[in-house]
Amino acid sequence: MVGGRVTALSVHDVRFPTSLAGHGSDAMHTDPDYSAAYVIIETDAKDGLKGYGITFTLGKGTEVDWSRERRCAFGYSSCFECLMGLVGQAGRKGVRRDGERNIARKEPGKGRDSKDPLWKLLVDMDPKQLISCIDFRYITDALTEEEAYEILQKGSIGKKEREEQMLEYGYPAYTTSCAWLGYSDQQLKKLCNEALKEGWTRFKVKVGADLEDDIRRCRVIRDIIGPEKILMVDANQRWDVPEAIEWMLKLAEFKPLWIEEPTSPDDVLGHATISKALAPLGIGVATGEQCQNRVIFKQLLQAEALQFLQIDSCRLGSVNENLSVLLMAKKFQIPVCPHAGGVGLCELVQHLIIFDYISISGSLENRICEYVDHLHEHFKYPVVIKKASYMPPKDAGYSTEMKEESVKKHQFPGGEVWQKLLAAQQN
Amino acid sequence: MVGGRVTALSVHDVRFPTSLAGHGSDAMHTDPDYSAAYVIIETDAKDGLKGYGITFTLGKGTEVDWSRERRCAFGYSSCFECLMGLVGQAGRKGVRRDGERNIARKEPGKGRDSKDPLWKLLVDMDPKQLISCIDFRYITDALTEEEAYEILQKGSIGKKEREEQMLEYGYPAYTTSCAWLGYSDQQLKKLCNEALKEGWTRFKVKVGADLEDDIRRCRVIRDIIGPEKILMVDANQRWDVPEAIEWMLKLAEFKPLWIEEPTSPDDVLGHATISKALAPLGIGVATGEQCQNRVIFKQLLQAEALQFLQIDSCRLGSVNENLSVLLMAKKFQIPVCPHAGGVGLCELVQHLIIFDYISISGSLENRICEYVDHLHEHFKYPVVIKKASYMPPKDAGYSTEMKEESVKKHQFPGGEVWQKLLAAQQN
Repeated sequence: MVGGRVTALSVHDVRFPTSLAGHGSDAMHTDPDYSAAYVIIETDAKDGLKGYGITFTLGKGTEVDWSRERRCAFGYSSCFECLMGLVGQAGRKGVRRDGERNIARKEPGKGRDSKDPLWKLLVDMDPKQLISCIDFRYITDALTEEEAYEILQKGSIGKKEREEQMLEYGYPAYTTSCAWLGYSDQQLKKLCNEALKEGWTRFKVKVGADLEDDIRRCRVIRDIIGPEKILMVDANQRWDVPEAIEWMLKLAEFKPLWIEEPTSPDDVLGHATISKALAPLGIGVATGEQCQNRVIFKQLLQAEALQFLQIDSCRLGSVNENLSVLLMAKKFQIPVCPHAGGVGLCELVQHLIIFDYISISGSLENRICEYVDHLHEHFKYPVVIKKASYMPPKDAGYSTEMKEESVKKHQFPGGEVWQKLLAAQQN
Repeated sequence: MVGGRVTALSVHDVRFPTSLAGHGSDAMHTDPDYSAAYVIIETDAKDGLKGYGITFTLGKGTEVDWSRERRCAFGYSSCFECLMGLVGQAGRKGVRRDGERNIARKEPGKGRDSKDPLWKLLVDMDPKQLISCIDFRYITDALTEEEAYEILQKGSIGKKEREEQMLEYGYPAYTTSCAWLGYSDQQLKKLCNEALKEGWTRFKVKVGADLEDDIRRCRVIRDIIGPEKILMVDANQRWDVPEAIEWMLKLAEFKPLWIEEPTSPDDVLGHATISKALAPLGIGVATGEQCQNRVIFKQLLQAEALQFLQIDSCRLGSVNENLSVLLMAKKFQIPVCPHAGGVGLCELVQHLIIFDYISISGSLENRICEYVDHLHEHFKYPVVIKKASYMPPKDAGYSTEMKEESVKKHQFPGGEVWQKLLAAQQN
């Protein structure tokens, strides 16, 4: 379906010095520089077709080199997945490798000529086409092809109305921008009050480094937002299993909807133990942003280890892998509440969750998508938030393309921004 | 404790063309070229102290570059772990980074001057020193520091006798060399008969690609080795959970001791389901060679998902991480039967399992260490097998050093061996 062939591939180490102001700080990552390995794929297609891919890291992880035709990537986390992610998300205007390539190929009559945004491309695919994009290996004990097909068939009822609803009202979001761990109480109060004025009704607070601090910060926020609005807390994997339960007993008075990443992201059984212990308090467990594949998500669902499932557009190695997770979540009746923020994660994941609502879940109950208010200005097609909701993107592709000027300025270590910072460090 | 400082670090992409003869072939890896990312660390110590590290890959994965002070590694599997593994296993004569560095540091009066092999270094450390090398984060719900200490205290009773026993008789091994999937029946028969003559009593067969083939091959081997000797089968992650159970019902007549890697290595719950289904047949589940950390092993033990635990010296990111797994296995009373083979894995893992016997498990019941008979000739201190047992190494360090000549010849793509092969391909 794709008219051109790939002729060049370049990787850019793009870093934003977010650590300077404490943006993005949490109990595990105290001074992250939000960064991306940014890939541009060029083709020989006559219309100048290009593809863009991104993987989010915290700075030091983006040591990526693409020299002498040797693919080398030393990712912050599991870099094979990162790399698959890079390539998987390289789509815009139809250059879709790995995940997206499959999807583009399977769609007769559209493919490369599609000017649709990714969510719309997915919504318009019929169940059989979608199923053919999914790798069911290792998940048939939880979800068979037949069950997936049935879910998608049922999901097609009322699709048109839900699409219209999305276009008018958007997908509900919550904000993480008010309460990074590195923010002072004063800054926290100021940001919460501003967010309330802007119409935000759901707020996430970073916790896990110091219990007394957490109690004070949760109290400050609960006082400002009042008892009705939604509060979530996020420990970023800080605790052991028994510690997570104890700590959350102390924060229960602030009525958090969920505790996010209480322990190691690999610990399915640990999350199940925590879920069971916190259920009587009405606190759910949320996790998934660090889960590398459908097999881990399958187990989290099978073990009743989470009450909110957080997909991440870059961690899972393709749109396709995310499809299988969305379908499993539907079968196990667990709401998907995507992880976002970072660099470009909001831009990407909005496509997946809007598709999820229109074609799979059909429900907004207990469902919200994370939003973090920074670095959008570097994207050519930034997210549009209205009344605390993601408005469906209208441009073609996966909203991945960054502004040329931003990439140039923030390349590490040669870009203007870093040259200045590094020079300042030396003085 | 280390007298010199690291002055240089070089990475070599060393590949052996094992695919030419089907060595190492299994249901998932049909034509592997057993390879290694081989690291040499140089120091400015007066005695010329050097360190050597290795990570096993299947060829294409060893695209490792170490240029312009940028650490780049694109591993076959999760490369961050590989890299930690590389560095963690860089020990010989005391240059021990990550894992081993800790061990060397914590050992007063020895450290760099130790001329001991790694197993002996570990055996001679007292329980408190060993405990101080372990990261208990995320495992305290399964094993506390106090429990680990108690295990090691108990393990010190009879240590001396067990050390003498090891030095005299060695650690029992099984062979995987007779029945790679790519071998013909004729070759299989020949190799089995030879192995029997050499004193081997335990044999592993690769299965999982074709059921009829598997039945025929298992029958051939069982006929040759007789009903008393031990047979194991290995599917290398080929199956889904229900498929694994069905397939093994068909192979049960050949009385395998275990089925190894029946499904995705990430699938703790899947392995538990398979274990439960196969228990009435007397077939255990073995897995672990692809497990990346102590959190996965913890869950495999908690979920009763395995009956034989297979550590791998290169997959886990250090000797230290392996220590925590050996101790958890002891607490859950599951025998450790290490994975070996590959490039250098036998050389390395023998140290860990000999230590396990002398200081932790104190038992040889149901315990065997894998042995594969190739590529040892490239190592400076190759394993010594006597009467189907690993004889404890006597040279200092972790037996990681490769022969200079072997490294030179097998470097990819510039080494003599590859230049010839690549030229032949072009003709």
